[in-house]
Amino acid sequence: MKKLLLAAALLSLPSTIAAQANVERLRDAALKDDLAFDMIEDLTTEVGPRPAGTPAEARARQWAAERLRALGFQNVRIEDYQMPTWVRGVEKAEIIAPFPQPLVITALGNSGATPAQGVTAEVVGFDSVAALEAAPDAAIRGKIVFITHRMMRGQDGLHYGQFGAPRRAGPTVASRKGAAAIVIRSIGTDYHRNPHTGVQNFAEGVAPIPAGALSIPDAEQLERILERAGNRPVTMHLTMTPRQIGMQPSGNVVAEVPGTDPNAGIILIGGHLDSWDLGTGAFDNASGVAITTAAAKRIMDAGRPRRTIRVVLFGAEEVGLFGSNAYYERHKDENIVMVAESDFGADRIWRMRTRFAEPARAIGVRVADLLAPLGIAVAPGDAGGGPDTGIWVRNGRAAIDLSQDGIRYFDYHHTPDDTLDKIDQEQLRQNVAAWTTMLATVANAPEEIGRVAAAGQ
Amino acid sequence: MKKLLLAAALLSLPSTIAAQANVERLRDAALKDDLAFDMIEDLTTEVGPRPAGTPAEARARQWAAERLRALGFQNVRIEDYQMPTWVRGVEKAEIIAPFPQPLVITALGNSGATPAQGVTAEVVGFDSVAALEAAPDAAIRGKIVFITHRMMRGQDGLHYGQFGAPRRAGPTVASRKGAAAIVIRSIGTDYHRNPHTGVQNFAEGVAPIPAGALSIPDAEQLERILERAGNRPVTMHLTMTPRQIGMQPSGNVVAEVPGTDPNAGIILIGGHLDSWDLGTGAFDNASGVAITTAAAKRIMDAGRPRRTIRVVLFGAEEVGLFGSNAYYERHKDENIVMVAESDFGADRIWRMRTRFAEPARAIGVRVADLLAPLGIAVAPGDAGGGPDTGIWVRNGRAAIDLSQDGIRYFDYHHTPDDTLDKIDQEQLRQNVAAWTTMLATVANAPEEIGRVAAAGQ
Repeated sequence: MKKLLLAAALLSLPSTIAAQANVERLRDAALKDDLAFDMIEDLTTEVGPRPAGTPAEARARQWAAERLRALGFQNVRIEDYQMPTWVRGVEKAEIIAPFPQPLVITALGNSGATPAQGVTAEVVGFDSVAALEAAPDAAIRGKIVFITHRMMRGQDGLHYGQFGAPRRAGPTVASRKGAAAIVIRSIGTDYHRNPHTGVQNFAEGVAPIPAGALSIPDAEQLERILERAGNRPVTMHLTMTPRQIGMQPSGNVVAEVPGTDPNAGIILIGGHLDSWDLGTGAFDNASGVAITTAAAKRIMDAGRPRRTIRVVLFGAEEVGLFGSNAYYERHKDENIVMVAESDFGADRIWRMRTRFAEPARAIGVRVADLLAPLGIAVAPGDAGGGPDTGIWVRNGRAAIDLSQDGIRYFDYHHTPDDTLDKIDQEQLRQNVAAWTTMLATVANAPEEIGRVAAAGQ
Repeated sequence: MKKLLLAAALLSLPSTIAAQANVERLRDAALKDDLAFDMIEDLTTEVGPRPAGTPAEARARQWAAERLRALGFQNVRIEDYQMPTWVRGVEKAEIIAPFPQPLVITALGNSGATPAQGVTAEVVGFDSVAALEAAPDAAIRGKIVFITHRMMRGQDGLHYGQFGAPRRAGPTVASRKGAAAIVIRSIGTDYHRNPHTGVQNFAEGVAPIPAGALSIPDAEQLERILERAGNRPVTMHLTMTPRQIGMQPSGNVVAEVPGTDPNAGIILIGGHLDSWDLGTGAFDNASGVAITTAAAKRIMDAGRPRRTIRVVLFGAEEVGLFGSNAYYERHKDENIVMVAESDFGADRIWRMRTRFAEPARAIGVRVADLLAPLGIAVAPGDAGGGPDTGIWVRNGRAAIDLSQDGIRYFDYHHTPDDTLDKIDQEQLRQNVAAWTTMLATVANAPEEIGRVAAAGQ
């Protein structure tokens, strides 16, 4: 019924009808897109893993700038900045007693290091950060803390926030209590021997300790070992030798589809170029790079839009949003009116949210109407942008969130398994179609897109 | 119709009817079995990986002997032998040019070693062993050979034979042609960054070269790299430092359910205790150990059978059937009349085959009839036993093959991913029920089980 009413409303505006038909054509053509997959294949094959602050990330910037120029984008440029950089070393974990066997582990970002020959200590297990916090320091001092959890799959990524606490908060709590090291159950939902890395930051003044993630089968194995050991101590030999290598160059890559109306403001879209080092970052986030670029290219090829579309491929997202923050500081006074980001894999867009002030709310309604044939529903609540664009939303910009289905996202997230073969090309094409639809609508919308009252964060 | 006719035939034998009802009760009770899972959990947790010839395999023998005694089996013993033993070292592969990035690799059994600092050489790719054989030696000398293939999933494991050639034959062919090393696409069907190891033996007089398997995503990455490199050489830095450590102790663990009729012969069943080192060998082959033991225990608890059931948990299957061969040499003159083996995971039994001489064929018909309610069909062709029992079949013994569904078997086979979480407890119970049904029928069958004319091998 709502759709019929909307259609009736649109019928009263002949120019809008023509615009809608144009967007529908672009949308349907995008369902045959090959560019996005091609870009993902290129980036993940010819650059591969591209950890922030490393030469591989620099190669990714060169690749992106060349590719964006070759595609016909304007004002292509690399904007450099410096960032503190951490690199992985050796990583090995082994149960020494009572049931000797190796376990698969990887260091978390900014993990401290063991001596080269490793450390051997008793393992003490907890099922939450709160349980660790509640334990007396004397029970932790000199021990290897293990924290497990029960993260479930979810379409919207909800569980990552709550169940990510062992990674984000665990290392600081364990260090404060004098632990020799901490190992956590990977923040993920798969059952493969691929551990999930991810950033963590020791709180100010807290000494870095070795901090690693066991793969989920290994974490469950350690749970069983602790349970079966009874009164016998479970001892682990842990070797992790990552290093902080100081300030290193990183950068954002920027490209534009110039608009016809310089007063209509800029639409900022993008994803991030850097990836974790374990996989080739196909889902996280060659996909976002490719989806937003492919959609912008389709708008460009369809004729100059009213508003400038600026594609920003951010650096150093994974390790602390260094690219996003550098970008905001440098460009915050520009007339960026709306942001949208793709950073949740390449599976189908299943829902959308908008955040507009009047009179631009009508734009969101039109986008929703045009996306419904792709199966996308409007979710309650306001759009918030993504990790790299949230800062703009918190500072009053309009936003549209096109949310990808995250059911299998945390099977691969930050693991060696984030590779090209995980990309479902049909779902990827639906993404490009949704993005093309959204961009064509907002870039050409006749309404003014003004600032939105600041969100309460 | 066939079933109705069988039922009619059975009705003419009152004692058979009672026996059948008894087997049906045992079968249905076994569908609630917990022992098999419990044993798999114990072995994979408390021993973990148990490569042949190592102290971990010795711990597995101790575990098995203690467990079998505790379950009430008779004549529990460990029969030792010595075997040549190979152990894994460092393993790392990295593309140096034109697209620098690490690849995930593992050494194949009996692989030669690189120097500690590794070797760097150009990669030359082939899509089959035949294509490698056809290449001029000059194109191979000093190079790293890469062989890929297109193994598909199959319920019966058919593809493993044909598509396993790069692993079994590739290293010898590559060495003969003067290759510096060989890397193959893992012999498997998954898309995870977990390479599949497995044994290979260099032919007599052929110099061992480093021989490794890339995970399937990595093999496809290397295919893309080779394709995109065009005329540029693709160079790899490869480090693998496995070692042959000479003759080491291994052994078989044996246990019996003694029969009432010493002249009726022995039914030999079992699986293998050793596993590859990368996983904890849940599918391969804690499952076979557990399924056969759990079924034999059910027969034992139901009262003494006519025939002795002998459970043999073989050592050193993975690396060349050393346990199986030692067992045959030592016991070949005993009155073992029939063999059956479980060594293809823990998924549902989907078909069966028998191999009996007259008048024992009727036993196979009764087993088939009793297994049909579990969804198990009779396949054409004769039973052949498994890797560890085939030698008995080739030497005239009767056999029953209960074949497990292998659709996902080669997703985990010989990888780090062969872990407890892969066990589907419902399917495992169906296995125990099928084995219990088969054992109860053959162990108590009134027919004589005689020798079968030697199979054509």
